[in-house]
Amino acid sequence: MHNVFLLNMNKQQLIEQIKIKKSFLCIGLDVDLKKIPKHLLELDDPIFEFNKQIIDATHHLAVSYKPNIAFYEAYGIKGWKSLEKTINYIKKNYPEIFTIADAKRGDIGNTSTRYAKAFFDDLNFDSITVAPYMGSDSVEPFLAFADKFTILLALTSNVGGLDFQVLKDENGITLYEKVIQQSLNWKNSDQLMYVIGATRSEYFKKIRKIIPNHFLLVPGIGTQGGSLHEVCKYGLNKDIGLLINSSRGIIYASNKKDFAQKAKEKTLELQKEMETYIN
Amino acid sequence: MHNVFLLNMNKQQLIEQIKIKKSFLCIGLDVDLKKIPKHLLELDDPIFEFNKQIIDATHHLAVSYKPNIAFYEAYGIKGWKSLEKTINYIKKNYPEIFTIADAKRGDIGNTSTRYAKAFFDDLNFDSITVAPYMGSDSVEPFLAFADKFTILLALTSNVGGLDFQVLKDENGITLYEKVIQQSLNWKNSDQLMYVIGATRSEYFKKIRKIIPNHFLLVPGIGTQGGSLHEVCKYGLNKDIGLLINSSRGIIYASNKKDFAQKAKEKTLELQKEMETYIN
Repeated sequence: MHNVFLLNMNKQQLIEQIKIKKSFLCIGLDVDLKKIPKHLLELDDPIFEFNKQIIDATHHLAVSYKPNIAFYEAYGIKGWKSLEKTINYIKKNYPEIFTIADAKRGDIGNTSTRYAKAFFDDLNFDSITVAPYMGSDSVEPFLAFADKFTILLALTSNVGGLDFQVLKDENGITLYEKVIQQSLNWKNSDQLMYVIGATRSEYFKKIRKIIPNHFLLVPGIGTQGGSLHEVCKYGLNKDIGLLINSSRGIIYASNKKDFAQKAKEKTLELQKEMETYIN
Repeated sequence: MHNVFLLNMNKQQLIEQIKIKKSFLCIGLDVDLKKIPKHLLELDDPIFEFNKQIIDATHHLAVSYKPNIAFYEAYGIKGWKSLEKTINYIKKNYPEIFTIADAKRGDIGNTSTRYAKAFFDDLNFDSITVAPYMGSDSVEPFLAFADKFTILLALTSNVGGLDFQVLKDENGITLYEKVIQQSLNWKNSDQLMYVIGATRSEYFKKIRKIIPNHFLLVPGIGTQGGSLHEVCKYGLNKDIGLLINSSRGIIYASNKKDFAQKAKEKTLELQKEMETYIN
């Protein structure tokens, strides 16, 4: 299942796209067959068809797409085929798009290399989300892939994100800060980005002091309650430096035949708001 | 890809199997096409054929098999097919075996539910390994599946395991202890097991004070340098309470036609050692 479209996006190209499109929006492709329009279910590959129409309608307003891998894995081999077709479709038709495999992987070294190979080489994603709990040698195998980005979970948007991530050590440093600080010492740390939930906007100022230049992938606006305004206020840097994700609010804006059009309208709303923050 | 062999193993049945076989061995099925005997590569599905012969040769000496999902994911759709065939083969022929999907998943609630569905319902694994970084609501969706076990990463065997897991909080409590303590408050916490690396034998005494009754899945003996003797000394409980994993030391004991026989011999050695600790 090797992929022929081998263009990788580097950081400068991503920043350029953000400036051209006046958008730092990432659209989460978390496809649930129970939520997509009924008429698609008659087709051979409803997941791919849904994604294709969403992508065709929104690609000029977003800089990134992020399939959450769980949603594909849940449909077994069929799901993996839909994922492969989706990423190939993006790479072929919209090579300027930054692709994120939201996989939250992480294991001992030789095993992390396997995951990296699967998502970077075979599926040709530009980046992958990775969990930090197992430390340096579980993340560095991902960073070893040139021109690919590793997006480390730091401070997540879910309620349980506060269970461990904000625990303070003896010196008053929280776990998520420690994760960010230590990761800067890892090999190829310039290829790191970080997941910071939009529901944690009070932390962005502190985070920007530790990592002024890295990109942050920010889920949690919309359904989960995070505010785009608050995140931008403290999170923007000289390169913009944010990828704001929206999934359900866009892709399920309608479950009728007009779903792609409605998704485009929601995307345009967000892009317009982003444009004001860029200016 | 629904599976017809719906028997789930409960804790009592697992303990019974340990007593019958005088073994608490788990064999890691981490199949690398570069390491398996050359003659298998001519076959239609070398990974499944390799697993099948290993399982047939060792099932009476081990209580559990643990495919590391990365090794299958790295071969794309073909890999997933081999995984599905392997788990079906075990469930059909050796339903007394406890199966572990070593997947180290974990995501926000609705997404974790997807992963749980994929591994518990569709592939019919008895258990899955899960990362704790995202907290309660990322793990509870796995625990919601009745008669299935969730094996939480606590203290891992790799070098990087010490980066964050042994950080102490203001009260001197390490992160891995906090993870274990808090997880006991989660819904259905009796369905939890914990990953504790064999290379961390000095911590087992402390861990058994917090969780005297839970099963521990212990990787890291053999290649990684952990000692079975040390782990048993401090880790065994009244029900045995340990699943000791060995992967490479068993499955790659030989890369010639005698690989299954050699794997059996290595397994027998470990089983014999375990028998002395059970007695």
